[in-house]
Amino acid sequence: MPLRRTLLTAALAAAVFSTPLRAQEPADWVDPFIGTTNFGTTNPGAVCPNGMMSVVPFNVMGSDENLYDKDARWWSAPYEYRNKFFTGFAHVTLSGVGCPELGSLLVMPTAGALDVDYRNYGSAYTSQTALPGYYSNLLTKYGIRTEVTATPRTSAERYTFPEGTGHILLNLGEGLTNESGAWVRRVSDTEVEGMKLLGTFCYNPQAVFPVYFVMRVSKRPAATGFWKKQPPKQGVEAEWDKDAGNYKLYTQYGKDIAGDDVGVWFSYDMQPGEQVEVRMGVSFVSAENARLNLEAEQQGRSFDDIRAAARRTWNDDLGRIRVEGGTEAQKKVFYTGLYHALIHPNVLSDVNGEYPAMESAEIRTAEGNRYTVFSLWDTYRNLHQLLTLVYPERQLEMVRSMVGMYREWGWLPKWELYGRETFTMEGDPSIPVIVDTWMKGLRDFDMDAAYEAMRKSATTPGARNRMRPDIDPYIEKGYVPLGFYARDLSGDNSVSHALEYYIADHALSLLADSLGKKDDAALFRARSLGYKNYYSTESGTFRPITKEGKFLTPFDPRQGENFEPVPGFHEGSAWNYTFYVPHDVAGLARLMGGRRRFIDKLQMVFDQGLYDPANEPDIAYPYLFSYFQGEEWRTQREVRRLLDRYFTTAPDGIPGNDDTGTMSAWAVFSMMGLYPDCPGEPYYTLTSPVFDKVTVTLDPKYYPAGELVIETERSGAGDVYIGSMTLGGRPLKKYRISHGELVGGGRLVFGLQPERK
Amino acid sequence: MPLRRTLLTAALAAAVFSTPLRAQEPADWVDPFIGTTNFGTTNPGAVCPNGMMSVVPFNVMGSDENLYDKDARWWSAPYEYRNKFFTGFAHVTLSGVGCPELGSLLVMPTAGALDVDYRNYGSAYTSQTALPGYYSNLLTKYGIRTEVTATPRTSAERYTFPEGTGHILLNLGEGLTNESGAWVRRVSDTEVEGMKLLGTFCYNPQAVFPVYFVMRVSKRPAATGFWKKQPPKQGVEAEWDKDAGNYKLYTQYGKDIAGDDVGVWFSYDMQPGEQVEVRMGVSFVSAENARLNLEAEQQGRSFDDIRAAARRTWNDDLGRIRVEGGTEAQKKVFYTGLYHALIHPNVLSDVNGEYPAMESAEIRTAEGNRYTVFSLWDTYRNLHQLLTLVYPERQLEMVRSMVGMYREWGWLPKWELYGRETFTMEGDPSIPVIVDTWMKGLRDFDMDAAYEAMRKSATTPGARNRMRPDIDPYIEKGYVPLGFYARDLSGDNSVSHALEYYIADHALSLLADSLGKKDDAALFRARSLGYKNYYSTESGTFRPITKEGKFLTPFDPRQGENFEPVPGFHEGSAWNYTFYVPHDVAGLARLMGGRRRFIDKLQMVFDQGLYDPANEPDIAYPYLFSYFQGEEWRTQREVRRLLDRYFTTAPDGIPGNDDTGTMSAWAVFSMMGLYPDCPGEPYYTLTSPVFDKVTVTLDPKYYPAGELVIETERSGAGDVYIGSMTLGGRPLKKYRISHGELVGGGRLVFGLQPERK
Repeated sequence: MPLRRTLLTAALAAAVFSTPLRAQEPADWVDPFIGTTNFGTTNPGAVCPNGMMSVVPFNVMGSDENLYDKDARWWSAPYEYRNKFFTGFAHVTLSGVGCPELGSLLVMPTAGALDVDYRNYGSAYTSQTALPGYYSNLLTKYGIRTEVTATPRTSAERYTFPEGTGHILLNLGEGLTNESGAWVRRVSDTEVEGMKLLGTFCYNPQAVFPVYFVMRVSKRPAATGFWKKQPPKQGVEAEWDKDAGNYKLYTQYGKDIAGDDVGVWFSYDMQPGEQVEVRMGVSFVSAENARLNLEAEQQGRSFDDIRAAARRTWNDDLGRIRVEGGTEAQKKVFYTGLYHALIHPNVLSDVNGEYPAMESAEIRTAEGNRYTVFSLWDTYRNLHQLLTLVYPERQLEMVRSMVGMYREWGWLPKWELYGRETFTMEGDPSIPVIVDTWMKGLRDFDMDAAYEAMRKSATTPGARNRMRPDIDPYIEKGYVPLGFYARDLSGDNSVSHALEYYIADHALSLLADSLGKKDDAALFRARSLGYKNYYSTESGTFRPITKEGKFLTPFDPRQGENFEPVPGFHEGSAWNYTFYVPHDVAGLARLMGGRRRFIDKLQMVFDQGLYDPANEPDIAYPYLFSYFQGEEWRTQREVRRLLDRYFTTAPDGIPGNDDTGTMSAWAVFSMMGLYPDCPGEPYYTLTSPVFDKVTVTLDPKYYPAGELVIETERSGAGDVYIGSMTLGGRPLKKYRISHGELVGGGRLVFGLQPERK
Repeated sequence: MPLRRTLLTAALAAAVFSTPLRAQEPADWVDPFIGTTNFGTTNPGAVCPNGMMSVVPFNVMGSDENLYDKDARWWSAPYEYRNKFFTGFAHVTLSGVGCPELGSLLVMPTAGALDVDYRNYGSAYTSQTALPGYYSNLLTKYGIRTEVTATPRTSAERYTFPEGTGHILLNLGEGLTNESGAWVRRVSDTEVEGMKLLGTFCYNPQAVFPVYFVMRVSKRPAATGFWKKQPPKQGVEAEWDKDAGNYKLYTQYGKDIAGDDVGVWFSYDMQPGEQVEVRMGVSFVSAENARLNLEAEQQGRSFDDIRAAARRTWNDDLGRIRVEGGTEAQKKVFYTGLYHALIHPNVLSDVNGEYPAMESAEIRTAEGNRYTVFSLWDTYRNLHQLLTLVYPERQLEMVRSMVGMYREWGWLPKWELYGRETFTMEGDPSIPVIVDTWMKGLRDFDMDAAYEAMRKSATTPGARNRMRPDIDPYIEKGYVPLGFYARDLSGDNSVSHALEYYIADHALSLLADSLGKKDDAALFRARSLGYKNYYSTESGTFRPITKEGKFLTPFDPRQGENFEPVPGFHEGSAWNYTFYVPHDVAGLARLMGGRRRFIDKLQMVFDQGLYDPANEPDIAYPYLFSYFQGEEWRTQREVRRLLDRYFTTAPDGIPGNDDTGTMSAWAVFSMMGLYPDCPGEPYYTLTSPVFDKVTVTLDPKYYPAGELVIETERSGAGDVYIGSMTLGGRPLKKYRISHGELVGGGRLVFGLQPERK
């Protein structure tokens, strides 16, 4: 199989770009529709790797024919594969999240009479094409073909119209975000600039921020103006004001408008097949910077040039990992997973380096890129480890961004969103990310400030601790009791909180040890073991503890499945959390009565459907078998089962929210044959790779070997069990490998077999 | 009486400014509460002569205790004397108009817990003081004393707080205007800038324009932020968003907000009696210009200095007419009338000369002042004539502004409002204003452009004639038939339209004649006589003509009283319009069957209550008697009756909408003893003055005599009939005097007597 690929590649090396027969490039194995239903909440829009701009078909409002409507239910994605009603392209979106946010600045091409009500102007569509950096469809109501592409901070959009009246609409009133309000100013007949307010992510009403934009149309409109939905009026005022409660068209006034629901229209007389292009630059600093971004990144290039450049950046990034063997479907799952892992965190700073400082109206200038969208409760588990391995320069910029947030705001991020701490989910997840990066040798950041920040959140008592609001009992008793943080016990997440603190404190103890801070190391190591308080021999699980120090009774460890609120645990049952002590698996096993009981219980979780593949707390579970000699085959079996079952090429091919790439990163690591199951520890647990060969181009600045090669020898696809392993030609005995060993240049070779060893 | 005044003045010349015993200045006879009820729609706010800025107590929303509520009925004033509930100071308002507009940028001081809902934060008040350029009250709910004053384009406000928590609120969501939407940006802890959208004046949805502002507080707040009323939400979204449908306080985010209903709060810990000052600059060009206006006009001066300067400008302007004799009440009525006549038109251009061009987003730079708020259907009758006489430099700038509008937009104004033509009321009222100015010798403007503009509106056929939309039948038949302009005949104003065109064409014919354009003069003179078509001998009035050329039947000439809609006439009955041919009174008399019938019919109008003192069409009626020798006493009697009855020092002392000073100008002229009853003709009809002596300081640049003195000799206040008249010592035979005669330097002396001559 590897041979065939090589020959094919050589044979087609001279093939013309974009012909069907050309050599397949990594981008060709990306299917952006994967994860766009089944609550994966990814989208098929155009975006560059870790880019600020995304241009995403918006199809979640305005029609009863849609299966999911953003206003009829809790809904967090701009696009849903099974919906049918397109109301424009959203600019700047989130991928794989569980709360509605961003997804505004909606641009829509229409034809015929001008109508600015999205319930009317939306259209069904066919002929969808989605590739990295490109999306296209055909609006059946109008016969308009849409095409969009992107640079890191700007969009390029090409709309091909039928003959007759055509319009470009910019709707600033709608979007996924629950904030409202925008202003827009006409700069010229072909350019507008403005601001749209965003925020209120995940119930946080103060996590509010503005996005600024500049939008240009390629053709001078025959007519242009604003619209604004008018507040309703009563009585005599309503009698004379026919616009009250309706969308009012401003035909004479075109300077500067503001409101909850405003927009801009450009109208044209179109020749058959005429194309009008839209270019948009965005910034979180100012409209001026949005224009600067637009000019710097586009420099007058054509749509096709920008599209080709976007594809090149994806091929460059995706191509850092080259896989051979496996099925086409597996390649698609892998590269689409890698694609999804390279969307967030994304760049926040403008081309001039300016960015909004954390929790401030201040504008600062970054030296490198400033990043944002840190969904750390998710991404601390594997996504940053993936970046550390394959994109270390980016991971370092992200760590520097996190330390910068501490400098500006006084705290490291938890779930940072465009300069706002949304306090979504729990724990102290910056600590394992920073420690993991440091422990893997990426140290070009201000560790003095970082350590100060980490120690601050690990030790500051009382309510002024923004990261660990319930730190007092945690320090005093070693655990967080029920009811400290939430009065409504159904919303109490005390056990989840504490489990996250244990992980963080374990990571911090590793770092303190490596920095020679022995006292700190001992302190945090001790605290990381407080999890034992929660283990109930009666239930055989972790179990909430009341303020009186008793286990919560009655107690059903299954309660909490499917995101049902339950006392003690956040988005999960006791089973989803009970094994989440990756830093002390042996200790947990002892608590449970020994290795055998641990293994049996963990196996039972899989066998009885107590494992939730759709959320993070238990995603390292399958790797825990490998902590016990002779049980590693269970890891290999369960990982392969999960990959085959939940990660497919279908639109529902991600088991739940992708969580800004965390689910995808799980699949990427697992398909390569390794997984960083204990955040902060520079180690990976090994499992059987899916591919025959995986070649990772390593950045020689950080990894002098320059390449990581994983090879697999097997007789067929059914060989999922590891029979032998060598590293650099020498047999590997353990199923855990250090980061240093992995990147040391020695080839990692798995011998697979159909039956467990 | 004159003697006593002179002695008193001399005796107190050295008295300290602002002591109760000082010499009375003109500003002391101004009572800004006159006209603030009975639909006078003036207000007691602080304003400078013809200033852009006004700072007006806003008391027309938020409480059932108010008699008049802006949202419960058609309501056009920011303040109503009989209301009780104060919700802040509006910045930039209209005085004396009949449609709601402007009256936004509401600043409110409060105390106690922060509440941004005006229904809650409003307060009752006592201790109102209103003087030219100054207003103050005491908010009883809070114990806060408010004081406001103004420069031409900026405000100064001083709020004296009790001990404890105090707030300054800037509400951008409410106001009189029917437009909504604003943005506001924090510049520093003590400064914000922004824009509020205004417009939709008098049913015109496209007459939309922005006001920009900069606002500063004198003290750094302990806390500050925005608020925004949130759109309501339904279902699951409403469940988690407690702010939905409510005012949301933004406590962390403070950069840049926009929406239908937004505001800014500044919170303080106050010492007892602590004062916080607010300064606001406005501009119709940009926030930058608002700041420029603020800095240029205030230059760091104290509140008291600004207040004193505002008073000085009023004394300077009001003092151009000095009256002696008459009662204190008559002086109050006179100077308050003059005050009201000096509010609109007001300056539009900023201190750097920039202004928004007419019906455009373009910014231009004026050489002198650019003026706005031209309520010309009202003001062409007398207000511009008053300015021409007493403030000629201002009148010329206004004419230049009108010609500038033609250059920018292609048409002279009809009812211009901040760069928008609102098309309110009818006719072609710029023509008589410009002609009147020219014929009175003020000629320092571009008459070539002006004549071109006037001829354009008088001759352009068809619907593209924006000033005279029904010009085709007017030219073809000499009149406008019913149903040409309005399908709903109850809203048809055809006769009113045509009557205005006759007046305008008469004025244009005078001008053409004076310019040597004999053909034009003849053409427009002939057209001005088309009024005869409307005279029905059956009804004895003007009467609408159907498309078939017949008089409307059935027909009730009284229909249309009290602003009831009626076919043919606008805001009036046939009686209110039938004598409105001031340019051909003799011709009208002939139509009516001669002088006697004319006089009897006109007298009947007064005797039977057919005269409406509350609107413009008939306000020149009492002067028409004087066109007939021996009947002049009727003018003198009716004018005095009207003055005594309708123009008082009470808050209801203006008979209806002051119409940007037109009603007040009627009183001012009438009390001086003369009235310009035929707009465009440089003549005044004389009547008996109210005062013993009126001295007008004339601008020697335009009127070399430099002074106009009108003296009255009488035995007592009951002497209302003219027995004799001399000008420069020579007997005057006629009761009409030319402008040239009036300003020629000869003293005009009336000998009055108790019985008619």
